[in-house]
Amino acid sequence: MDNHAKVAVIMGSKSDFEAVKPCFDTLKKFCVKFDAHVMSAHRTPDLVCGYAKSAENSGVKVIIAAAGKAAHLGGFIAAYTTLPVIGLPIKSSTLDGLDSLLSIVQMPSGIPVATVAIDGSVNAALLACEILALSDPILSDKLKEERKKMHSGVIEKDRELRSELELD
Amino acid sequence: MDNHAKVAVIMGSKSDFEAVKPCFDTLKKFCVKFDAHVMSAHRTPDLVCGYAKSAENSGVKVIIAAAGKAAHLGGFIAAYTTLPVIGLPIKSSTLDGLDSLLSIVQMPSGIPVATVAIDGSVNAALLACEILALSDPILSDKLKEERKKMHSGVIEKDRELRSELELD
Amino acid sequence: MDNHAKVAVIMGSKSDFEAVKPCFDTLKKFCVKFDAHVMSAHRTPDLVCGYAKSAENSGVKVIIAAAGKAAHLGGFIAAYTTLPVIGLPIKSSTLDGLDSLLSIVQMPSGIPVATVAIDGSVNAALLACEILALSDPILSDKLKEERKKMHSGVIEKDRELRSELELD
Amino acid sequence: MDNHAKVAVIMGSKSDFEAVKPCFDTLKKFCVKFDAHVMSAHRTPDLVCGYAKSAENSGVKVIIAAAGKAAHLGGFIAAYTTLPVIGLPIKSSTLDGLDSLLSIVQMPSGIPVATVAIDGSVNAALLACEILALSDPILSDKLKEERKKMHSGVIEKDRELRSELELD
Amino acid sequence: MDNHAKVAVIMGSKSDFEAVKPCFDTLKKFCVKFDAHVMSAHRTPDLVCGYAKSAENSGVKVIIAAAGKAAHLGGFIAAYTTLPVIGLPIKSSTLDGLDSLLSIVQMPSGIPVATVAIDGSVNAALLACEILALSDPILSDKLKEERKKMHSGVIEKDRELRSELELD
Amino acid sequence: MDNHAKVAVIMGSKSDFEAVKPCFDTLKKFCVKFDAHVMSAHRTPDLVCGYAKSAENSGVKVIIAAAGKAAHLGGFIAAYTTLPVIGLPIKSSTLDGLDSLLSIVQMPSGIPVATVAIDGSVNAALLACEILALSDPILSDKLKEERKKMHSGVIEKDRELRSELELD
Amino acid sequence: MDNHAKVAVIMGSKSDFEAVKPCFDTLKKFCVKFDAHVMSAHRTPDLVCGYAKSAENSGVKVIIAAAGKAAHLGGFIAAYTTLPVIGLPIKSSTLDGLDSLLSIVQMPSGIPVATVAIDGSVNAALLACEILALSDPILSDKLKEERKKMHSGVIEKDRELRSELELD
Amino acid sequence: MDNHAKVAVIMGSKSDFEAVKPCFDTLKKFCVKFDAHVMSAHRTPDLVCGYAKSAENSGVKVIIAAAGKAAHLGGFIAAYTTLPVIGLPIKSSTLDGLDSLLSIVQMPSGIPVATVAIDGSVNAALLACEILALSDPILSDKLKEERKKMHSGVIEKDRELRSELELD
Repeated sequence: MDNHAKVAVIMGSKSDFEAVKPCFDTLKKFCVKFDAHVMSAHRTPDLVCGYAKSAENSGVKVIIAAAGKAAHLGGFIAAYTTLPVIGLPIKSSTLDGLDSLLSIVQMPSGIPVATVAIDGSVNAALLACEILALSDPILSDKLKEERKKMHSGVIEKDRELRSELELD
Repeated sequence: MDNHAKVAVIMGSKSDFEAVKPCFDTLKKFCVKFDAHVMSAHRTPDLVCGYAKSAENSGVKVIIAAAGKAAHLGGFIAAYTTLPVIGLPIKSSTLDGLDSLLSIVQMPSGIPVATVAIDGSVNAALLACEILALSDPILSDKLKEERKKMHSGVIEKDRELRSELELD
Repeated sequence: MDNHAKVAVIMGSKSDFEAVKPCFDTLKKFCVKFDAHVMSAHRTPDLVCGYAKSAENSGVKVIIAAAGKAAHLGGFIAAYTTLPVIGLPIKSSTLDGLDSLLSIVQMPSGIPVATVAIDGSVNAALLACEILALSDPILSDKLKEERKKMHSGVIEKDRELRSELELD
Repeated sequence: MDNHAKVAVIMGSKSDFEAVKPCFDTLKKFCVKFDAHVMSAHRTPDLVCGYAKSAENSGVKVIIAAAGKAAHLGGFIAAYTTLPVIGLPIKSSTLDGLDSLLSIVQMPSGIPVATVAIDGSVNAALLACEILALSDPILSDKLKEERKKMHSGVIEKDRELRSELELD
Repeated sequence: MDNHAKVAVIMGSKSDFEAVKPCFDTLKKFCVKFDAHVMSAHRTPDLVCGYAKSAENSGVKVIIAAAGKAAHLGGFIAAYTTLPVIGLPIKSSTLDGLDSLLSIVQMPSGIPVATVAIDGSVNAALLACEILALSDPILSDKLKEERKKMHSGVIEKDRELRSELELD
Repeated sequence: MDNHAKVAVIMGSKSDFEAVKPCFDTLKKFCVKFDAHVMSAHRTPDLVCGYAKSAENSGVKVIIAAAGKAAHLGGFIAAYTTLPVIGLPIKSSTLDGLDSLLSIVQMPSGIPVATVAIDGSVNAALLACEILALSDPILSDKLKEERKKMHSGVIEKDRELRSELELD
Repeated sequence: MDNHAKVAVIMGSKSDFEAVKPCFDTLKKFCVKFDAHVMSAHRTPDLVCGYAKSAENSGVKVIIAAAGKAAHLGGFIAAYTTLPVIGLPIKSSTLDGLDSLLSIVQMPSGIPVATVAIDGSVNAALLACEILALSDPILSDKLKEERKKMHSGVIEKDRELRSELELD
Repeated sequence: MDNHAKVAVIMGSKSDFEAVKPCFDTLKKFCVKFDAHVMSAHRTPDLVCGYAKSAENSGVKVIIAAAGKAAHLGGFIAAYTTLPVIGLPIKSSTLDGLDSLLSIVQMPSGIPVATVAIDGSVNAALLACEILALSDPILSDKLKEERKKMHSGVIEKDRELRSELELD
């Protein structure tokens, strides 16, 4: 494990890479060092367990768990650590992501998983950044800067729309 | 662990006892020795892991996992054993059991969990019996006998209905 | 019927063949002899009934029933045998498989159907193997071997991910 | 079987009697002779099969099948007869009747089941009457009369509302 | 209106023609004369009302109403006639047909609509035939013949499957 | 019909009165004269049709249609008028109001129904008031005043909470 | 802001333009002047707030808010104005629009949002027109004219259908 | 605002107090100072906006937003701050909490809300604690201690179960 990584991104299956890629991209954009693994709650439970148990001592602050269908990865990791675990439900070939979402968000009392939208990879990364930013003023500033960029981006799109509709 | 138990029933929470009780009653009715535990995938993952790993060597043949909400117990156990694992979704206070059902049945490829109906405690036990009966002719006969009793029970109810409706 | 087949796979419609094929492939991989039929609960009920009634005497141990929409095939078969019946819900053109899943898994008390995920063909076969393995140590070893292969497969995918992300 | 009954009402379980009772009451109100049975697709499949096969020759014109959960009764009967089969989904303790509804209405091509609302017992009876009325002018007149009564009933309720609200 | 048509097929929108076409084909196959119209409950309510009111006197026996989304056509027609009305829910671009299904099947007490599966055009036609066959022995025989053909069709598909799997 | 009523509230069934009562109370609170009727799209279609056609000439500006299950009332009325029609879905005994909601809101292109929340009687009335207020400055002021009262009400509740939690 | 616009159309994201375009086209068809903006409840809340607060004074009569997923735009705007707000749920890449619909329609008591169908852009515009038409007889006539055109359009489609089916 | 509070709990309605109380209790158990308010995204948007904007400067680290139905509170707050916002969906009288859940969790890209289970008040508090514990070793130890207590609690329940079932 990379001792300097603040965020660990665990994917239940490599086949979800396209859906999860914006998460990696977002972490890179904010210069947040991350560790990443394909680990399966069901196929490599020992690896998940070992990683989850040692994550805190390795310096990881937040763990993002991306999984689909009966998505147990987030809950499995959360069972072994008191670090904040972010659950990222991935849409699979049936049920439009509802199974992933409910399997992640409906955690029983005692072990929370912070769930974002189905295929919400960018938000999973942003949430991790928001948490890290509580003790990292530079990252906090970057998040605020990003909000301004989003603000400007919307205004730019607004201009495009009004131009297309010949409103101004 | 009881070395002679053929079936292990693991409940994620003692609060599900009323919903699971018909499972125990059914196993008793068929004289199937069972072991039972309250063990939580999220609160006592090590216990679940240890139990699941050693179950086969202890003589257990089938494991029934009863859990609600984001019900990871069945998948968690199935990750550690190649014994057949029966998932019993328990209805909780929200979503009418749909979350439990999807969390259990939608297992990704490689690790099956044999799922029965929401709150289907009797069927979880019967399915375990059907599996055991493959190498236990006496149990197989009992199951066939039970089917006959169910048959007769329906006929009795039919008589009641027809009597109430004054059809005969 | 093939007297040596241990598993019978009944499909409600030939049009589901692509979805069910991984089930056949998995049974072959584990060298489990299987019988297979297209039989419809609604179009050829007599054939289903006859097959289900005689399956046990023919040496079949487990029956897999694959069907979509109002998927009655599994319950229909289970009504005529005390062999374990595995229900495999097939996704059709509407409702994303939810109708198939509920029609199969929500069996009333007394007649269980062991349900796997929507389009979960591999798991249907693996569950059958797990049941057979209870009295077949060689098959049990193969299942454990397969778990190791899955484990290695995940590790290989993990390496790919980390290489793509230039993490090591 | 009552040779003069035009409508057969088959209930999957006596426990649904309260939900189905308005169906019987409605048939009585229209003086339609009916036969009634508790028969289970899963517990007494042979009885259902036998009844369905012989219904037409016994003079039955329409069969109403009331069942809950994975409600296979209607499809099971429809498989054995070309008489119109009306499916009446009964709400059970979980999923609010959605499982019953989908199990009945989503019949695959070739074998229709005419489905009414969840717990729609009155409508199941009325639909049977509408079918019978095609060759029974007296019954047809009664149905039209009933429509007029419903019309008057609404007008009466309208008066009550307007009186309570002091609108006239 | 064609005075000799026994079945009227009303479509809420011409854009549903592809989905409804198997209904027409099936009626033709059984030589059942049908009338057909595009009429909208919302865009041409007066036409629907007029047609529904006069249908019985024109000799129509059964009305099939095909519509999608908030599908009121079936209920609208049923409000104006005591002929059996068959509701055919059409899947539209959102919600996978669930809105159409519930809008049609959940009719309040007093006015039934006999609902078939989402996009179940063949079954809508077959159900109409089954109803007509109650007083048409030739049609009844054709339906039984069709069942035999379906039976043979399944057997043929069974042979194909077994041949592909090299089972015989 | 009351020639001075600005809002017409049509209920599909008197049994929904308790659910609809807050709608009447809200209209009274804002001194908006309303007409009210129990009229059923299915039991008294002619009355609904007549009312809808003449509403505009009678001075009605907005029509509120409250109905449950396959709730066709709003769409039925909207088919006969170009006045704004507000659909109020009423929760019934099954499906938790989802059927009512979808039957009302998913109107096909051309005939809108302005839908509020399930059992959202107050909001149905407020929406009607907002529409009327566009040409009624006094009503507009009352709506703004009500917003202030809601604002104050929340602040009062905030004080209660903080007092109970001993936060100030 | 355009001081003469009667309708404001606010889109939460420019990416929804294709889905919303029929709304603009419909407003143009009825010669209703509209203002349009891309504004995000979450990315530019201040702009939304400012626009909503000043809309009434700028002469806007109705605001249409189009948004997808957790679609807060309509409710956000409605919180700042007593003008009628029409919510237009946009289908996104997961859950088929159900999330958008429920996020918009299920507004708590006190702040209504008039919701139309998922992707119901034409109806959002028509509903705005119906509201404006209450004080604009010319627009009211245009709406009635449009109804006649829709009526004729259906009749034309009816002819096409009957011609294709060789019914006349 | 209490300048020393680390966690702010905002409730959309005082009527949700019973559902949210375990959140307050849990924060107290962990000696985490919290601020609490009833503030409505729709009734007091200015208060929510003001609070959200100033929260970070007041020393708040995490905001918990509890709301039901079309629950916009969490997204509304998240729009005004880069602090982590935890969304707590509250079950209301219809749809079993599904509307609340989807309205909160399905946030569009850019503005995350960390969502916990429907009525998951304890987990909302625990998640806040986990985030705070990243820079508070004492709190981190308390969380680990709590996990041990949960572990022991399960073992105690296990003993009770085994005693009731006379298994030891």
